[in-house]
Amino acid sequence: MKRRNFIKSTSVLGAGALILPNSIFAKTAGLQRKVRLGFIGVGFRGQNHLNEMLKRNDVEIIAFADPDKRMIASAIEMLSKSSQKECQTYSADDYGYRKLLARDDIDAVFVSSPWSWHYRHGTEAMRSGKIVAMEVCGAMSLEECHGYVKTYEETKVPIMVMENVCYRRDVMAVLNMVKKGFFGELVHGQGGYEHDLRGVLFNDGETAYNSGVEFGEKGFSEAKWRTEHYLKRNGELYPTHGIGPLANMFDLNRGNRMLYLQSMSSKAVGLSKYIREHEKGGEQHPNANLSFNQGDVVTTQIKCANGETLMLTHDTSLQRPYNLGFRVQGTEGIWQDFGWGNNEQGLIYFEKKMDHDHRWKNTKEWLEKYDHPLWKRNARAAEKSGHGGMDYFVDNAFIECIKNDVEFPLDVYDLASWYAITPLSELSIREGGAPQNIPDFTNGKWRQRSNSFGSSNKY
Amino acid sequence: MKRRNFIKSTSVLGAGALILPNSIFAKTAGLQRKVRLGFIGVGFRGQNHLNEMLKRNDVEIIAFADPDKRMIASAIEMLSKSSQKECQTYSADDYGYRKLLARDDIDAVFVSSPWSWHYRHGTEAMRSGKIVAMEVCGAMSLEECHGYVKTYEETKVPIMVMENVCYRRDVMAVLNMVKKGFFGELVHGQGGYEHDLRGVLFNDGETAYNSGVEFGEKGFSEAKWRTEHYLKRNGELYPTHGIGPLANMFDLNRGNRMLYLQSMSSKAVGLSKYIREHEKGGEQHPNANLSFNQGDVVTTQIKCANGETLMLTHDTSLQRPYNLGFRVQGTEGIWQDFGWGNNEQGLIYFEKKMDHDHRWKNTKEWLEKYDHPLWKRNARAAEKSGHGGMDYFVDNAFIECIKNDVEFPLDVYDLASWYAITPLSELSIREGGAPQNIPDFTNGKWRQRSNSFGSSNKY
Repeated sequence: MKRRNFIKSTSVLGAGALILPNSIFAKTAGLQRKVRLGFIGVGFRGQNHLNEMLKRNDVEIIAFADPDKRMIASAIEMLSKSSQKECQTYSADDYGYRKLLARDDIDAVFVSSPWSWHYRHGTEAMRSGKIVAMEVCGAMSLEECHGYVKTYEETKVPIMVMENVCYRRDVMAVLNMVKKGFFGELVHGQGGYEHDLRGVLFNDGETAYNSGVEFGEKGFSEAKWRTEHYLKRNGELYPTHGIGPLANMFDLNRGNRMLYLQSMSSKAVGLSKYIREHEKGGEQHPNANLSFNQGDVVTTQIKCANGETLMLTHDTSLQRPYNLGFRVQGTEGIWQDFGWGNNEQGLIYFEKKMDHDHRWKNTKEWLEKYDHPLWKRNARAAEKSGHGGMDYFVDNAFIECIKNDVEFPLDVYDLASWYAITPLSELSIREGGAPQNIPDFTNGKWRQRSNSFGSSNKY
Repeated sequence: MKRRNFIKSTSVLGAGALILPNSIFAKTAGLQRKVRLGFIGVGFRGQNHLNEMLKRNDVEIIAFADPDKRMIASAIEMLSKSSQKECQTYSADDYGYRKLLARDDIDAVFVSSPWSWHYRHGTEAMRSGKIVAMEVCGAMSLEECHGYVKTYEETKVPIMVMENVCYRRDVMAVLNMVKKGFFGELVHGQGGYEHDLRGVLFNDGETAYNSGVEFGEKGFSEAKWRTEHYLKRNGELYPTHGIGPLANMFDLNRGNRMLYLQSMSSKAVGLSKYIREHEKGGEQHPNANLSFNQGDVVTTQIKCANGETLMLTHDTSLQRPYNLGFRVQGTEGIWQDFGWGNNEQGLIYFEKKMDHDHRWKNTKEWLEKYDHPLWKRNARAAEKSGHGGMDYFVDNAFIECIKNDVEFPLDVYDLASWYAITPLSELSIREGGAPQNIPDFTNGKWRQRSNSFGSSNKY
């Protein structure tokens, strides 16, 4: 599927609004108009994206929609310190985003809303002709995943899943080595989200991190909505940080695909203990006796069409150092990560290149030597960006793909299949570990689709 | 169940042969007679045990049984260099072990035979009143596991599962910290057997390691029989190195137990590639086109009665550094291993003891400080023993438990449940990942049984 077709089929919609990749000016020598952006959700994550966009001279901020007036005020404050003008805001209620989407002067939107709103925000944006940058999470239901694909196939409006860990420097260096064949034929991969979120899931309602034991109505920022999922659900709630990087290495939806998964959940003891032991909590605190459903450690095994196995771990409610726990293993190499992406935080081994010595090497030398061209070229631009520079790359890719009229490297099929891991893992756990088929959202196209992620040194 | 009961119920069998823990002299001031040993299987693993026994002055080597005359000759050679006299050998055919078991001057046997012989050797030994030191593997079938338990319960002749990794120095130091409560409430554990065995599974029929691509009749040592399992089976073939250490930490069969498991297997490409690329193999070698059934990486998720999850990995047919991949995670601590047990080959984190800094520490300082009393006391004795000293401890425990008239810390219920992982994982994989119940071999006694492993600093 070439972007050309997309342009043809949508160009009838009108030349006034740039609702499609700005192919009109991408074909000429330079940019003739900026990419006009709306933001649905300007909480801390939306503000990260806004921060990235404010550094650019090829975009224009048109509008924000968020019912949280404190967050809207922060976003306006950021804007006021920039060279961009003020913009329209929609914060009267939960549905202000519809007014934003009704505008005809917005090309693309960043969706950084609570998980349960992603589907409405994403699909309504596509239906209104706005290209979508969709923040990560897992789906609320499998039906949502089919809905994203259906909406895309009906509208042809592109949606990119904004998985920043795909752009982590060590991850991209390893991808580079995978593509060069250093790992031989891939056999097994691991990743996940192993991050102590207790201080994020609970706060005092004012200060976002480590400030208390409240959540929901009494919480602030993520504690307002994320914690509820831990109360009611039990599964691989946040699969994309793990599966995204693996997907690019294992060619998921592009020559390979996920066939089925089986999940298992440990008991849930971390969050209650946190509340009981917190200075603002204690045994008598009303939240101390809540029964959280989400197991502290949820592991998910995934079988791929080409015979590889993948393993994801969701581990966010216990004390622990941050570590997404990547492992990439093939017939000629193996990589094991134990940190947050610094180049010395991992072990690597290539039998042939290391003279069969059966000894792990620290990753530093290898990750430096095989630094991905995209990082090599853009490291300085990414220096002050969020999450160790990853945010620069994922946001840059979104804008550059629009400007250069090329397919997003992480598209609706990736989004649907990655998001699907969540409801399927929940079902597997409810059914005592029963394996669950993962739909082929590409409807067979995975066999022909090619893997373009990281193939450019520009985006 | 106290050993006292065992003594009472078996003492009628006759006072001539010391077929039970030598409680008769254990009750007196000192040893009055040595523990008399037979060896069923004197291949390299049996020779390791023999080597340990030859260092002791409290045992006597009575007989060897092994159909492999080359291995018998090696064992005799070892004996001749020791202070022990020569001993009887049974090597005429596969059933020489029955003549060994028929003797009335043997107290205990070491079984170090090919996996498919363990059941016959172990249960027939129990039925002949010989206390059993059983080498590790997984069962050929679930029926075998029930059979070990039935045989033990009928004969009351003890059998110890000789899992040496339970005695690895880092593993025991972590166990020590677990028992001290450093990890809080345990939630998740990982381990397995991640060891490149390609050079063991194939050889030239003469030299055991890395010497060729033959196996079965044309192979030597383990290649003679182990490789066949990779050809025909697909599962967690070797679960005990992983589950043993975890069992002691998670109180399996002693206040906790494994409820069910689900396994997944990757494709099998490592062994064929090895044969094709070996200088003595090649594309034209008859073994190059064999289709091995055993997946290169098999992962197994296990749910425990107390809500914890365990994960085992069997990964023995790809290039990789040795690493059993232990992880022990609780509400207050987490340990991650990445080597072969040296004290600096791991990462550890205890939130409260490390001032909430969210940074892994190298294990060295912690493993040294909390070195297990058993190791602290016996490190010098173990210095020249196999597998980094582990073999000293496991073999010493076997003999000392007999002499001191105490239950083996790793007993028939451990053996049955650990061995059961293999046939159940095979079934799970055959059934596309379907979860499989793990029988309660203790028949409810797991609730009362207490965990004695490592509780003595003598054995």
